[in-house]
Amino acid sequence: MARTPEEFRTKQQIDVRVLHEVVGIDPKAGRVRVVDLSANREWWEPYDHLLIATGAVPLRPKVPGADAAGIYGVHTLESGIRLRKILDESRPARAVIVGGGYIGLEMAEAFLLRGMQVSLVEKAPQVMGTLDEDMAVHIAQALTDRGVTLHLNEGLEAFEVRDGRVRAVITSQRSLETDIVLLGMGVVPNTDLAREAHIPLGERGAVRVDRRMATQVEGVWAAGDCAESFHRLTGRPIHVALGTVANRHGRVAGMNMAGGEASFSGVLGTAVTRICSLEIARTGLQTRELEALGRSFVSRTIESHTRAGYFPGSGRIHVKLLADSDTGAVLGAQIVGEEGAAKRIDVMAAAITAGLTAQEVSELDLGYAPPFSPLWDPLIIAARLLAKDAP
Amino acid sequence: MARTPEEFRTKQQIDVRVLHEVVGIDPKAGRVRVVDLSANREWWEPYDHLLIATGAVPLRPKVPGADAAGIYGVHTLESGIRLRKILDESRPARAVIVGGGYIGLEMAEAFLLRGMQVSLVEKAPQVMGTLDEDMAVHIAQALTDRGVTLHLNEGLEAFEVRDGRVRAVITSQRSLETDIVLLGMGVVPNTDLAREAHIPLGERGAVRVDRRMATQVEGVWAAGDCAESFHRLTGRPIHVALGTVANRHGRVAGMNMAGGEASFSGVLGTAVTRICSLEIARTGLQTRELEALGRSFVSRTIESHTRAGYFPGSGRIHVKLLADSDTGAVLGAQIVGEEGAAKRIDVMAAAITAGLTAQEVSELDLGYAPPFSPLWDPLIIAARLLAKDAP
Repeated sequence: MARTPEEFRTKQQIDVRVLHEVVGIDPKAGRVRVVDLSANREWWEPYDHLLIATGAVPLRPKVPGADAAGIYGVHTLESGIRLRKILDESRPARAVIVGGGYIGLEMAEAFLLRGMQVSLVEKAPQVMGTLDEDMAVHIAQALTDRGVTLHLNEGLEAFEVRDGRVRAVITSQRSLETDIVLLGMGVVPNTDLAREAHIPLGERGAVRVDRRMATQVEGVWAAGDCAESFHRLTGRPIHVALGTVANRHGRVAGMNMAGGEASFSGVLGTAVTRICSLEIARTGLQTRELEALGRSFVSRTIESHTRAGYFPGSGRIHVKLLADSDTGAVLGAQIVGEEGAAKRIDVMAAAITAGLTAQEVSELDLGYAPPFSPLWDPLIIAARLLAKDAP
Repeated sequence: MARTPEEFRTKQQIDVRVLHEVVGIDPKAGRVRVVDLSANREWWEPYDHLLIATGAVPLRPKVPGADAAGIYGVHTLESGIRLRKILDESRPARAVIVGGGYIGLEMAEAFLLRGMQVSLVEKAPQVMGTLDEDMAVHIAQALTDRGVTLHLNEGLEAFEVRDGRVRAVITSQRSLETDIVLLGMGVVPNTDLAREAHIPLGERGAVRVDRRMATQVEGVWAAGDCAESFHRLTGRPIHVALGTVANRHGRVAGMNMAGGEASFSGVLGTAVTRICSLEIARTGLQTRELEALGRSFVSRTIESHTRAGYFPGSGRIHVKLLADSDTGAVLGAQIVGEEGAAKRIDVMAAAITAGLTAQEVSELDLGYAPPFSPLWDPLIIAARLLAKDAP
């Protein structure tokens, strides 16, 4: 967190100034320690209700050279603005991205659009670990097709630094010369303040909360990337650092803090993203999660089209559905495809939330017209096949 | 129906030839009367199972001049191919469309794309009667913006004919000079054969069927635009002439006729279409239907964006949701908006099928990323408002 006043201007010409910082919580006395960054003054500020909304911090690699100049992350509006300024001014030709998740892939697109040469290093055997490996291969293929050099199964070992500036990324396999490095290694809940105040933490170090977003300490609430969620399908705590979830957290916490009554309805793990023209979406539980839970399940993967095959702009779409072997209830869905693919995931989010079976999904009366879908929507095709394996 | 052999070639270079026609059914003897159109020969052909799949025929106006040249419909592949050939060869400058439903509006787009001057006559006070009037106004506005001259509340009274060819469309209000006329007045089930064979008809003259697609006569089945469906929400018979429904009918009938067991799951009235860049979608019951059923309901209409407001290509979207006043169960949804709007209807088709309430829809974990949605999907915004009025 900032230790000096910070100022920056957003694209929308909004001046942002960080003037105060909370450096400690005293829940027993119901007060927080506030620092006035411009006046170098500190005091205790009392509260009736306290909301911890400290967000998350990006994971930084603990390898030699990690503090060198030229290594960037994008986790705040400000860090994005800074990076864009650097790209505009110094026009680097080469970028290495460390991490093949949402941020890594979205930044790969941004770099490609600027005509940069992009390499991506990922220690796992696949990009986008929130999808199953057989679906992630389509993403990898699309990245390669668009000019990204992928290095999977390669751990980051060090950064080569010259004159204080990163010159190369050293992986377990090779050395990649580069002008800049972008870190997309994920985030961890920013819960130092909570931990120091003995407010109990839970999943992955996020602040433990109930469905009202109340922590286990009277009068203290938490919301956003620093707080736990729970999974709608498993009921178990889960940490999801996404804007939609944070926003829903905040709404529930705010209503309860203001004397109302609201309950967080949980997350299904729905996420969508786009890399160039490739759309990626997922919801529910993936194979790895179902296996970890010891659930008995079946899955089917199909390839179809986003529109009627003869319609201009019709593109490929891959759909994977997973269902409970015993009940047939759909448990998860993954989609990778061209324009029009991703938001189809919302149908499955509704279906999974409602407990629909694969057979029931296959019988849904979905909209058809040539600009929008083949006669049988890809979801129907996948569900119909899946229903053959599940009751 | 054709009384002489017909031949034409589709765009995909498939030669189509109509060689035989069934002119009568004798269900008691289990046989049909077949005519060989090329040999002028007739005979009785026995059957074990008979499928009536005679489709629908377009409504033709019973007004003076209706048989003139230059008046077209598009209800078969062949009629579409013929009309396109005429447009290519004679390049008419002006078209009047009679009827403001799906066919009328889609043909308006086709004519506009050819640079033609388009007028549309509709006797109802709104276009697209399958949507509520407050949603249809957005469609009317978009049509007007794109150059279509709309004449609502105007009944067709006659065609002015010169030398056997249509020259003008006479409405209750005016005379519209034109080069061609396109009829989009809807269809009626083509059930002459069934009626003559005393096979019971039902809703709007469609062949009465049970959920197995069996007619009330042993060994005779019906599917497609000539057959009844039933509505998932009301359980009542309904006639829906749509490709998706026809295809599902055929699948169920075929499985049962082949000795399997299949049951039609009904229709929700989902339909999507596009006119230029405007997308239109609906599912469930609209205000008129709910009122006719005497249902107590509430509704909310919102305006939002298809993508994050700042994202390139973000467009307007209007969403209307209707729910049961007592249970809160969502009963209907209507969407009019720019690119990305229409297929959102599928989420509501799933939600309505599953019996989700407005509150439950407002809590769905839908996908968010700036290229696909504002942080709160328009469906969530509408459902949240609706939930305030319904339990």
